[in-house]
Amino acid sequence: MMTPLTEQECIELLRTTTVGRIGFVADGRVQIIPVNFLTDGRDIVIRTDPEGPLSALPSSRELVAFEVDHHESLAATGWSVLVNGPVTTMTMAELDAVLGASTRRPWAEGDRSLPLRLSSQLLTGRRVRRRS
Amino acid sequence: MMTPLTEQECIELLRTTTVGRIGFVADGRVQIIPVNFLTDGRDIVIRTDPEGPLSALPSSRELVAFEVDHHESLAATGWSVLVNGPVTTMTMAELDAVLGASTRRPWAEGDRSLPLRLSSQLLTGRRVRRRS
Repeated sequence: MMTPLTEQECIELLRTTTVGRIGFVADGRVQIIPVNFLTDGRDIVIRTDPEGPLSALPSSRELVAFEVDHHESLAATGWSVLVNGPVTTMTMAELDAVLGASTRRPWAEGDRSLPLRLSSQLLTGRRVRRRS
Repeated sequence: MMTPLTEQECIELLRTTTVGRIGFVADGRVQIIPVNFLTDGRDIVIRTDPEGPLSALPSSRELVAFEVDHHESLAATGWSVLVNGPVTTMTMAELDAVLGASTRRPWAEGDRSLPLRLSSQLLTGRRVRRRS
């Protein structure tokens, strides 16, 4: 049984986790990469390497995707939230204004000096539950 | 600290879980949708609705993505595996020949009569660990 989530439910579920997945097209293939993230209202904020693959997101032709989900195998239930929108670069001052930016740091090390904002143009989600 | 995984490690990690995420482009945006799956050698097998959005995967221009990952927040560690390749339709007889096909059924209900194979043309993965 699949139930769509409201936008408000999607926003609340996004705030329950700190790891999501960025989806984008590069080199003729769809790529999905887990990232640490922060929320800023409806938007997703990540910090990345200015020389890394995610630094090209602001020039993506397609709307970039960001997904979070949660599953419980024993209960065969789960939910997922999908955000789609354009990505823009942020200044470090803009990043500092985001709640949680000073305390949460990405797990991966290395240069993370490029903050990016995914503007949540489309926000959809669903809950799945197996009827027993 | 980010360490690339070998193909063999990727194949073994794919077999540790039953939920992954399909990534594809539709309507000008990247979509990421959680799905139950089976492995068949290096390939990914899913069952979907012949009228649903995943039924269009065999005609995708880009290489479709399939991702699994695992994260431990307390330890700030995790791994992810990304499969890219073309998607083809399978017959029900071909599906029946896949190990596990008779015992594992998708959580979502409804018509799941279209089996699809994602041929693993590219298989990459990485492990992330925060140096403390």
